Amino acid sequence: MSDNFNSQFFQHVDASVPQYVAELGEAVAIPSVSADLQTHLKDIIQMEEWTKSYIERLGGSAELLPNPKGVDDNGNELPPILLAEFKAADNSESKKTVCCYAHLDVQPAAKEDGWDSDPFVLTEKDDKLYGRGSTDDKGPALSWLWVIQAHRKLGVDLPVNVKLMFEGMEESGSEGMFEAIQILSKEGKFLSDVDFFCISDNYWLGASKPCLTYGLRGLAYFSCSVQCCEQDLHSGVLGGTVHEAMTDLVQLMASLIDSSGKILVPGIMDDVAEVTPEEDALYETIDFNCESYKKENKVASVSNKLMYENEKDLLMARWRYPTLSLHGIEGAFSGTGAKTVIPAKAIGKFSLRLVPDQDPKRIEKCVSDHLNKVFASLGSPNKMNVTLLHGAKAWLSDPNHPNFAAAARATEKVYGLLPDYTREGGSIPITTAFEEATQMNVCLLPVGACDDMAHSQNEKYNKKNLVNGVKVLGLYLHELGELKG
Amino acid sequence: MSDNFNSQFFQHVDASVPQYVAELGEAVAIPSVSADLQTHLKDIIQMEEWTKSYIERLGGSAELLPNPKGVDDNGNELPPILLAEFKAADNSESKKTVCCYAHLDVQPAAKEDGWDSDPFVLTEKDDKLYGRGSTDDKGPALSWLWVIQAHRKLGVDLPVNVKLMFEGMEESGSEGMFEAIQILSKEGKFLSDVDFFCISDNYWLGASKPCLTYGLRGLAYFSCSVQCCEQDLHSGVLGGTVHEAMTDLVQLMASLIDSSGKILVPGIMDDVAEVTPEEDALYETIDFNCESYKKENKVASVSNKLMYENEKDLLMARWRYPTLSLHGIEGAFSGTGAKTVIPAKAIGKFSLRLVPDQDPKRIEKCVSDHLNKVFASLGSPNKMNVTLLHGAKAWLSDPNHPNFAAAARATEKVYGLLPDYTREGGSIPITTAFEEATQMNVCLLPVGACDDMAHSQNEKYNKKNLVNGVKVLGLYLHELGELKG
Ligand SMILES: [Zn+2]
Ligand SMILES: [Zn+2]
Ligand SMILES: [Zn+2]
Ligand SMILES: [Zn+2]
Repeated sequence: MSDNFNSQFFQHVDASVPQYVAELGEAVAIPSVSADLQTHLKDIIQMEEWTKSYIERLGGSAELLPNPKGVDDNGNELPPILLAEFKAADNSESKKTVCCYAHLDVQPAAKEDGWDSDPFVLTEKDDKLYGRGSTDDKGPALSWLWVIQAHRKLGVDLPVNVKLMFEGMEESGSEGMFEAIQILSKEGKFLSDVDFFCISDNYWLGASKPCLTYGLRGLAYFSCSVQCCEQDLHSGVLGGTVHEAMTDLVQLMASLIDSSGKILVPGIMDDVAEVTPEEDALYETIDFNCESYKKENKVASVSNKLMYENEKDLLMARWRYPTLSLHGIEGAFSGTGAKTVIPAKAIGKFSLRLVPDQDPKRIEKCVSDHLNKVFASLGSPNKMNVTLLHGAKAWLSDPNHPNFAAAARATEKVYGLLPDYTREGGSIPITTAFEEATQMNVCLLPVGACDDMAHSQNEKYNKKNLVNGVKVLGLYLHELGELKG
Repeated sequence: MSDNFNSQFFQHVDASVPQYVAELGEAVAIPSVSADLQTHLKDIIQMEEWTKSYIERLGGSAELLPNPKGVDDNGNELPPILLAEFKAADNSESKKTVCCYAHLDVQPAAKEDGWDSDPFVLTEKDDKLYGRGSTDDKGPALSWLWVIQAHRKLGVDLPVNVKLMFEGMEESGSEGMFEAIQILSKEGKFLSDVDFFCISDNYWLGASKPCLTYGLRGLAYFSCSVQCCEQDLHSGVLGGTVHEAMTDLVQLMASLIDSSGKILVPGIMDDVAEVTPEEDALYETIDFNCESYKKENKVASVSNKLMYENEKDLLMARWRYPTLSLHGIEGAFSGTGAKTVIPAKAIGKFSLRLVPDQDPKRIEKCVSDHLNKVFASLGSPNKMNVTLLHGAKAWLSDPNHPNFAAAARATEKVYGLLPDYTREGGSIPITTAFEEATQMNVCLLPVGACDDMAHSQNEKYNKKNLVNGVKVLGLYLHELGELKG
């Protein structure tokens, strides 16, 4: 890779910003909300068709793979998965192949939720591009196309073969993706010759310093139901005569965690990996500040207290230790005002974030044993049931892998500094799916800032992150092309 | 009152059943849901207009009193209150005046909630009339009109002057009624010459034996909010770093009551009145059976256990001891499925049913002191707030009052047996309001059966209860007319 290419490429990207903004605007205008397939399946498909035809105009091959799962649990047709390929013109056979994953669906959004502008009209203000999907994940998805386009315009061959796998159900459980990954990893199929994976669907730790992400927590999401009868009862008419489900459920939920954040379920901490000196060192230089974190997450104006008030402990609590959150109760009264109901069946929802080396199956047993024991101690005649709704292992990669090293060098060339190595508290289950099905390394290469408000009101993508993102992803391909062996 | 009138009246009522069913069907078809004024204010008003014009066709005078409260806390216009009068033609001045209260609004209902038929289409099946409001309270409300109509058709003068006060906000806190009762009780106003009140808006203890109700529990309905930040957070991204509101709230709710039904708030039991021998005796003959109670309330098929397994203890728990019910949590995740949210602010809803001689103000202090103490013990930096949303004293009347005696004799003439004397677990706050403002006796004269499922799916009114209800209410007027002094 020549410095000559770099400067030409950077110039081209800088000059193309108005085009990028216009095209991102076209993409944002398609309300591809996967949470509501009945209304928006057609929009997801339109978004996929829009992208496919863009790819074909760039000379790539593309197909819409019918969703291997067919329909979701409610019988709604699921959108296809977009598979595309740009082969290098010269020596394609000897060049490496990278598969870039992104998603074209978005979270729901409505102006009434508190957006300052129409969420489906990309709106520029103070060098920020506001709109649903701007940063999650349409901006990053299109960036791969802009990288290819730059090579075409500059007459430069691709340093690696580039495959794209873009789905339309990520915000709703990536339905069909896991099946697709299994099928496509078989001998001779789409993923079978992939050497590296790259996913740009998470965020920097802060607002200004880029990072690479090498770990994700897993998830064990539980429901715990208590039923006392078959119909809701009136608390005035019947209160005092039945063993109320809510009374038991609240005791059960209260037995899971205390206000200091300590998980009270025996055995949960048994398999948590020790901190190694190498891991510990990664935390030392990280660009992170507790005070800004409180402000960004709007804790400052309420309690103004975090679980830990020093950066390393807080990041470890977020990334490498399990946590338990109580999300709410289904089946009980949840409206405003005062309803005098005795819920017949109340279903507590809570989840643990898992870390290496916790096994969701073992966690399920710990939680289930604990709740059964507590429930027995209540002496209640009600029916109690614990169910693991979702289980996913944590993911931990090697930040020294060549795939990460390539991403780090690309970042350095664009930003002039080495990225932080971060983990994420959340899970991105397809990461593990790609890795387990193909045994190839997956690098999480975020391009958006921590305050992009993915999933929230006023989601935005900084124009600066857009520009630098295209540059980093472009150079990343060249760094991969330089790798030996 | 002559036996001749009785038999003519009974015949007329029996012959009018098809008309009654048709008219109740018209009323049920108007979805006068007071919980949703934005959508249904017009329907409540239509229901009131429908009734007003019925009254006027019967020769009564009627007016729609603008709601004295004007708007609710959300700024929604409140429906008017219907005031009507049927004066006796002869000796009106020397005759007693009874004021009959009912409500024309209904609880929300939707087919999807699990109704077997459209809740707003009165549907007859096995001599039961299914529909929202059929028994609560449109059937009883219309019964007063049918009683008047029978007198008109039979050419019989009214034995007492009859006033009707029908409201449209009962299911949503009777907003404006308390102000109206105050205003209308003043010298020369609508309620100032009322001698007796009758309310038919509760239910028999069982499915077959009529009763009169002389006591109601009061209410202290609380919300307890805990806030940790100003926006909902993602439990994956941030779990482990903030003091979560739900963790604290569940501890607070768990501190209120245990699974045996024991209220854990200190001081709550201090002012509960002792059981007197007279009171104790009223429980001896009551038509009540724990096994049927379990079946009716659909406890049998789930836990098949009540708090007490003997009738007297169970009825006392329901009527004359305080209870505490946890209703649910506002602001947390309450949907189906799995949402990984850390709620920013979670608001627990719970209420106590109060009995003589508990004072809601003192109960508020006990609950607030207790929760503040428990919250302090949690060491949480979050913001906690306890609010009494509604407070109402218990009501206890004299079952030997002439008003009750008249209702008892009317019941005996229709059913051939004396009614049970019951209390209710729930509160009907306007009962106390009428009594306190006018110093006149209020008789609760239920006409529906215990299994009518008011507020629930498949609410119904037995055709037999409808017919006998009209008869009892008609004879009750005559019994009042016979009273001396
Ligand atoms: Zn995403
Ligand atoms: Zn997302
Ligand atoms: Zn009612
Ligand atoms: Zn009601």
